[in-house]
Amino acid sequence: MNSRAPDFDTRDVTSVRKAVRSGAYVGYTAGFAPDRVQANICILPRSHAEDFLLYCQRNPQPCPLIARSDVGDPCLPTLGEDIDIRTDVPRYHVFRDGQLAEEVTDISRLWQDDLVTFALGCSFSFEYALVEAGIALRYLERGEVAGVYETTVDTMPAGDFRAKLVVTMRPFAAREAIRAIQITSRFPNVHGAPVHIGDPGLIGVDLSKRYREVGSGEVLPHEIPLFWACGLTPQLATANAKPPLCITHAPSSMLITDLRNAGLASF
Amino acid sequence: MNSRAPDFDTRDVTSVRKAVRSGAYVGYTAGFAPDRVQANICILPRSHAEDFLLYCQRNPQPCPLIARSDVGDPCLPTLGEDIDIRTDVPRYHVFRDGQLAEEVTDISRLWQDDLVTFALGCSFSFEYALVEAGIALRYLERGEVAGVYETTVDTMPAGDFRAKLVVTMRPFAAREAIRAIQITSRFPNVHGAPVHIGDPGLIGVDLSKRYREVGSGEVLPHEIPLFWACGLTPQLATANAKPPLCITHAPSSMLITDLRNAGLASF
Repeated sequence: MNSRAPDFDTRDVTSVRKAVRSGAYVGYTAGFAPDRVQANICILPRSHAEDFLLYCQRNPQPCPLIARSDVGDPCLPTLGEDIDIRTDVPRYHVFRDGQLAEEVTDISRLWQDDLVTFALGCSFSFEYALVEAGIALRYLERGEVAGVYETTVDTMPAGDFRAKLVVTMRPFAAREAIRAIQITSRFPNVHGAPVHIGDPGLIGVDLSKRYREVGSGEVLPHEIPLFWACGLTPQLATANAKPPLCITHAPSSMLITDLRNAGLASF
Repeated sequence: MNSRAPDFDTRDVTSVRKAVRSGAYVGYTAGFAPDRVQANICILPRSHAEDFLLYCQRNPQPCPLIARSDVGDPCLPTLGEDIDIRTDVPRYHVFRDGQLAEEVTDISRLWQDDLVTFALGCSFSFEYALVEAGIALRYLERGEVAGVYETTVDTMPAGDFRAKLVVTMRPFAAREAIRAIQITSRFPNVHGAPVHIGDPGLIGVDLSKRYREVGSGEVLPHEIPLFWACGLTPQLATANAKPPLCITHAPSSMLITDLRNAGLASF
């Protein structure tokens, strides 16, 4: 998907948005406009919007809500003055009754007056903060993503939205583990501090069994695994709620906002 | 030493200081004036004061300096308007050439014009913050202190002051371990964040071998040990430096200052 080198400045948010909006770029967004906040997107009909909002409120670590649009309004002015959610995500997944129905690069023709957009913070922001602090993320250096696992921990349901907590795992030596907890604690809007540290079995995780085979599960002998709540949790909850229509970003092809990662830091 | 119930208000800093100053109270200070900062005390002749100050500067986690007096001045006005270090610690240990020479309850007769007082923050302050946050400290509930261990990690020497890092160990379940790192990170003046987490062997510690048999080394199967730099480190460095005279507080009988624990929080 990213086989051809993009012919725009991938570090500049305006250039990236323009290329995405025009349909010229339909690939992954990891590493693009790296100082800007990227967001998980979930678009639902009004009938399901209140319960989803409540699900986010009750489960802020997996569902750190950074914006919710007005009903029927494709704009997200608090994330970027000119954002139009119908065109500004490279690829979308369209679910009908909880089942993936199609993948598209523009949802203008699917737009309805009752749709509500939810934008959730994503771990790219805290990974940026970790790397800026000099903490090496081995999987990133290899072009991989963090290992993803479904736990046996229940999230708090809201209406028909319910799911086990999905987590990402990142391994660190002891000093970096402590630093990683300090740094990610500053970013509650992008999953915040880890939800677990150490023995994976205590949250029902077997490190060799990744969720949908996503990411790296490698932990070296001197390392401790740290587990963060993951944005796949609300996707799983939404699949369980089976709304008639749900549109999300395609994995790793996110909405890039105007917000700066460093601007999210709470202290 | 604490066999008789004190006949003063142990929660009030003024009452405690008065009882200590008069010699009426010569016991432990744990739990006294619990909202106030207690300090480790190290009094050295001017000849050794610069190197000790440098040792503190180079090793802020074991040696979080909160005050240094003027030469020959027994007052510490930034810690309490009326503090007189010659009378306001319940019991003192007097070292000559690095060896414990005597234990006294007043050092007025030992005072010299060249003495310099150093006051270092102590883990009582962050333990208070942990307990206030609802994190149970099992050893405290049993009337014990945290387990103390000498590591194989070198501190950075200054002049003749050199020592291996001494640490305290506190065990936590995963969620509380993460909270404990967050909370203690707010208090760099009282040892701050842990220096290690997880496998004790990585810092040369065997949990069954406590330093001078001090404290509790218990870690339950679901718990992770966290290790904080300990104020015994500068005491060890001072013993190694063998100054002609050194006066410290006796273990667990600290200087109680007017500063509030919560006032030390850096964010």
